[in-house]
Amino acid sequence: MHDDPYDLPAAAQRIGPYVRRTAVMRCRTFDRMAGAHLYLKTENLQTGGSFKVRGATNAVMMLADAEVRHGVVTHSSGNHAQAVALAAAARGVAALVVMPEGSNAAKVAAVRGYGAKITWCDNNDKARSSAANKIRREHGAALIHPFNDARVIEGQGTAALELLEEVDDLDAVIAPVGGGGLLAGACLAAAGHRRTVEVIGAEPRLADDAYESMRTGILQPQRPPATIADGLRTGLGELPFSILHTGVRQIVLVDDAQILEAMRLCWQRAKLVVEPSGAVALAAALWADLDMKSKHVGIILSGGNVDLCRNELCHFWR
Amino acid sequence: MHDDPYDLPAAAQRIGPYVRRTAVMRCRTFDRMAGAHLYLKTENLQTGGSFKVRGATNAVMMLADAEVRHGVVTHSSGNHAQAVALAAAARGVAALVVMPEGSNAAKVAAVRGYGAKITWCDNNDKARSSAANKIRREHGAALIHPFNDARVIEGQGTAALELLEEVDDLDAVIAPVGGGGLLAGACLAAAGHRRTVEVIGAEPRLADDAYESMRTGILQPQRPPATIADGLRTGLGELPFSILHTGVRQIVLVDDAQILEAMRLCWQRAKLVVEPSGAVALAAALWADLDMKSKHVGIILSGGNVDLCRNELCHFWR
Repeated sequence: MHDDPYDLPAAAQRIGPYVRRTAVMRCRTFDRMAGAHLYLKTENLQTGGSFKVRGATNAVMMLADAEVRHGVVTHSSGNHAQAVALAAAARGVAALVVMPEGSNAAKVAAVRGYGAKITWCDNNDKARSSAANKIRREHGAALIHPFNDARVIEGQGTAALELLEEVDDLDAVIAPVGGGGLLAGACLAAAGHRRTVEVIGAEPRLADDAYESMRTGILQPQRPPATIADGLRTGLGELPFSILHTGVRQIVLVDDAQILEAMRLCWQRAKLVVEPSGAVALAAALWADLDMKSKHVGIILSGGNVDLCRNELCHFWR
Repeated sequence: MHDDPYDLPAAAQRIGPYVRRTAVMRCRTFDRMAGAHLYLKTENLQTGGSFKVRGATNAVMMLADAEVRHGVVTHSSGNHAQAVALAAAARGVAALVVMPEGSNAAKVAAVRGYGAKITWCDNNDKARSSAANKIRREHGAALIHPFNDARVIEGQGTAALELLEEVDDLDAVIAPVGGGGLLAGACLAAAGHRRTVEVIGAEPRLADDAYESMRTGILQPQRPPATIADGLRTGLGELPFSILHTGVRQIVLVDDAQILEAMRLCWQRAKLVVEPSGAVALAAALWADLDMKSKHVGIILSGGNVDLCRNELCHFWR
């Protein structure tokens, strides 16, 4: 399966100097609740606050000098924007990030803090991608797509790769699915592993396009952005879908109330700040209809970028 | 200095099977703010949510079978209660914990969850210690004092010991001071280290009895419990004071506003849930009048037990 274009160990080596090998943590409370052995891959503690820096860095480092001479460009209101800003800074090139008006102030500040130049656009997909394409044409900057890019998928796969290296006897890995880069990367990591590991996707019920795409075998369009897991509102990408198609055992759905409860448990019991999207895989391990009894299950806590203003917190804990 | 009664490496080995070797984390934002290299010892990720399990486990494991036959007893409304409950469970003996009426519900649930039996008492120091002494006399249970106990101090010292082992070139270690067990333990760890490491205490200005004790050379009484750092409201103990007297370079004071801001930074940037007391050493590194420029400084994030109810959070982020 996709053996040729992807080389995860090479990606891991390439991005090694720029990203963290995040800790794998245990929590007795979660194990008891799940009736299984859970291994939490803490990508919320990753540089930039999410796994996204893995894929962005891999992509940016693989570009030829000539391609990257005029910088890199992307469009994102979220974690990928910070990741590209960090990757460009590591490579020493300019980062041009298209962000929609009204983006979260903390994320805007972080993107700026990492040295990127922000271009504002209207808050819809068309405006975003046309603004990014305009910059690409006019500046000659290289576009780094958040998930529909083999180099990005390869980079994201290093999270699951590290988990499989560190916990030798894993039976399954659960990763959240939005655009599908992280989950597709986990499929690649599992495919290269010496023993069978089931890869399971976890998706908010209010953004179930990946679930429906797998069920019907046809890529389904993005849902309206209703789930609290803002990082997973994106529609599944074509390239990730082609990998999930054969690599994923199943995608399970979780409710927003379960996502919030899993997030609260992470904060309260594991003392880890995770964002709603970052708690989706844990919610699946705790409450989805999965036969995980006594199994060893890797859980990717994908990110921790929440805005700790009072309104947001009181929204979570209302 | 106190070479004889304390053997930290032996304590580390004794408690090794029951406690976590917590990760040492870095955060570029904090380094930039402090103008120094900060190494965060994440005791908020420790079993039971704080360093307290180190000292309690060391004390409980050092008791002879005859001493521990009727269980152990302590009085605490906070992290030490959970720690003794965990330590007793590890030894396989009963834990009797005296808690004041009105204790935080999350902490009560955690103490019960670890299998301890709770005895309620009025919410003042006299009622607590007389209830614990009554249990000691009537049940023959062994009393585990939270800090005025050499075995407890030795156990707490293993946190700094691990930090010194892991970061070879530390110039200083900053630890919070309440009863003084953790800071005294850090003094013992530094005294046994092969190079000079300055030990610095960080204390809330609203609970500055340790600062005043060091300044005057005479143990000062506990202050009214006004600081938000509830874990540090306790008065400095006699035994810790005798160790700090020669082992600590200085104690610095931080305001409650700085404690809250350091706590917010931990959550927002490092993605670590720390309690107010757990952020006091970081607050000192960032804002106290310390000459730390370009130095390598260990910071003990001592605990993460906050109640994530809406009221509490909105209190922190008002």
